[in-house]
Amino acid sequence: MKRIVFLLVAVATLAGVVAFTAPAPGSADQQAAPVFGIKIFPGYRDWRLISVAHEAGNLNDLRAILGNDVAINAYRAGKLPFPDGTAIARLAWSYVPSEENNKVFGRSQSFVPGSPTDWYLQFMVKDSKKYAATGGWGFAQFDKDGKPADEAMHKTCFPCHEPAKASDLVFTHYAP
Amino acid sequence: MKRIVFLLVAVATLAGVVAFTAPAPGSADQQAAPVFGIKIFPGYRDWRLISVAHEAGNLNDLRAILGNDVAINAYRAGKLPFPDGTAIARLAWSYVPSEENNKVFGRSQSFVPGSPTDWYLQFMVKDSKKYAATGGWGFAQFDKDGKPADEAMHKTCFPCHEPAKASDLVFTHYAP
Repeated sequence: MKRIVFLLVAVATLAGVVAFTAPAPGSADQQAAPVFGIKIFPGYRDWRLISVAHEAGNLNDLRAILGNDVAINAYRAGKLPFPDGTAIARLAWSYVPSEENNKVFGRSQSFVPGSPTDWYLQFMVKDSKKYAATGGWGFAQFDKDGKPADEAMHKTCFPCHEPAKASDLVFTHYAP
Repeated sequence: MKRIVFLLVAVATLAGVVAFTAPAPGSADQQAAPVFGIKIFPGYRDWRLISVAHEAGNLNDLRAILGNDVAINAYRAGKLPFPDGTAIARLAWSYVPSEENNKVFGRSQSFVPGSPTDWYLQFMVKDSKKYAATGGWGFAQFDKDGKPADEAMHKTCFPCHEPAKASDLVFTHYAP
């Protein structure tokens, strides 16, 4: 595994892409989330954009949904189910008004990301064998310091995603 | 120039990164925007995430702000002014409630991207010599079909961005 990561870093450097330098919580020796055993993907902040969203109500956040290459290719091909190796990250920040922007617009209309939310980071990872009991998906949730949620919380992921069966348990659509 | 692009494609393929395949409006023979002569960057939908935002009011959109490698590196280094070669893209979609998500949440709270907005795509491009008269930045705005806005509209970009002098005319901060 280490060899593969080193190879990727070398190739990424060749390509002029600065990977694995995101100011991300978590690192190689980071704690795995319970139930599904997923760790924070070190390069997730460099993944490409799937979509964005605003969750109002109690969550009151702005969020970005990013995907690794397998995820992005699957979304663009429009084929379901997602193939093994798909990884999707959900990042969330508090929803705050931007006084700086509002001054320029001349009215109160601009909302931007504040601090990372308490449950800043979530992953969905496709492995149809390993996660056969949960529709082929593993789920993980981490707080803003990279600490995983507990087992009880991780057991709520699959039932909550089940209504999205028609889109292979994934709520987020690709933003054109 | 063509040779550089081909080289990049070759290296990107090596790295397992599928670049230049975004279903983006515009292509190599796409019309340049007036005043600053900027064309749609073919790979912009593959750029990494700087931040997201919700503009309420008349705009009523959800937006993503993406950056090329020069932009992302500059943001992460926290150094101003942005170096020449920086390119920042702003994508905007209409702000629509997601009935699908709201059903799962059990309340009306989820807002997601709908169609691309009329002025879907904007770019800021740093070239301190070429764009010396406008703070080193060139600006471009395109509609959802990739057609550039007119000259009069492009002349409003710089005055509107001037209040953001302290952050080198860029409103968007990097989302952690």
